[in-house]
Amino acid sequence: MKHGIDYSLYLCTDRRLMTSATIEESVEAALKGGTTVIQLREKDCSSKEFYELGLRVKKITAAYHVPLIINDRVDIALAVHADGVHVGQGDLPCKVVREIVGPDMLIGVSAATLSEAVQAEKDGADYLGVGAMYATNTKTDTRPVSMEELLKIRAAVNIPIVVIGGINRNTLGNFKGTGVDGLAVVSAIVAQPDPEAAARELLRLWKA
Amino acid sequence: MKHGIDYSLYLCTDRRLMTSATIEESVEAALKGGTTVIQLREKDCSSKEFYELGLRVKKITAAYHVPLIINDRVDIALAVHADGVHVGQGDLPCKVVREIVGPDMLIGVSAATLSEAVQAEKDGADYLGVGAMYATNTKTDTRPVSMEELLKIRAAVNIPIVVIGGINRNTLGNFKGTGVDGLAVVSAIVAQPDPEAAARELLRLWKA
Repeated sequence: MKHGIDYSLYLCTDRRLMTSATIEESVEAALKGGTTVIQLREKDCSSKEFYELGLRVKKITAAYHVPLIINDRVDIALAVHADGVHVGQGDLPCKVVREIVGPDMLIGVSAATLSEAVQAEKDGADYLGVGAMYATNTKTDTRPVSMEELLKIRAAVNIPIVVIGGINRNTLGNFKGTGVDGLAVVSAIVAQPDPEAAARELLRLWKA
Repeated sequence: MKHGIDYSLYLCTDRRLMTSATIEESVEAALKGGTTVIQLREKDCSSKEFYELGLRVKKITAAYHVPLIINDRVDIALAVHADGVHVGQGDLPCKVVREIVGPDMLIGVSAATLSEAVQAEKDGADYLGVGAMYATNTKTDTRPVSMEELLKIRAAVNIPIVVIGGINRNTLGNFKGTGVDGLAVVSAIVAQPDPEAAARELLRLWKA
């Protein structure tokens, strides 16, 4: 699963913003619409709840042959046999995560600067989430990344890059021709009245 | 480190209750007073902060040849090379934790009933934290455990038991002769004006 991943449309879940009744429904709608990677992000539940949710979501992503990536919690990623784990700059360092998970699990790292990006690749990251590209209500603790910085990062690292933060049908066109591998979105799918249709439309616009 | 552990005086840290300026000072004072096990419990910091704190505390506990146990976060326990991890009934299941950490890391499990205790031993726990024995302000989500239930648990399992919840110099005498291996405390050490003296006195009273 680790190689040959299609990063075109990468969804981060958010139960606070979703229009679906459950995370499982939100994820399945996104997958029906063609979403190519699912990242499960939970900040306010117990470890047991995260684990049990992870097991249920893993069954769904596996049925669609799409990788499941767990945000922050390396132990939950191992416990549910996720395909990967994604860490931000405030999470466990990538190098330490690699020691824990071994060579086969995907590690994604959030990077907002060239130096964070280069360090992450050096420390064994398999892909980067670069952003926030635009102001967003989903995460308020992020710095904006300029297009210039994104292009510097793209030129400096060889691993896949998804852009994140304010990516939607109106902004995605700005990333065509930049060499990034895909779009990471939250509200552009989960907060829409029809998440499946929203995912399909994002993918169509991105590939057009 | 896994075998031959002295569970006599088991401290769970709590930064909200501590009289010391830092967790490191709180832990070192407890160790100077003879505390035999340290459990680091953090619920409101980032993974990176927990990791960095864990590394600093590990240096201190190692200098005193006392095991360091991380609460809940199996990934942090692995990242800081802690001696063990402690899971409650709302954390990752013991059986899953054992699969992740392998045979050598200590696993402690919180148990409030005979069935939870028996299951934990069956699932590979190395010791039990049984409680809350008394009402306590430290944790408000716990059920009280009767002395009768504690004795049933002691008779049913072979692994070491520490009692927790409202254990202090006034209540510890109730556990002499019950066959439990030690006392787990929070405020009876960290919330005292002189944590080192408090630890020393608890140990003296328990061994008397």
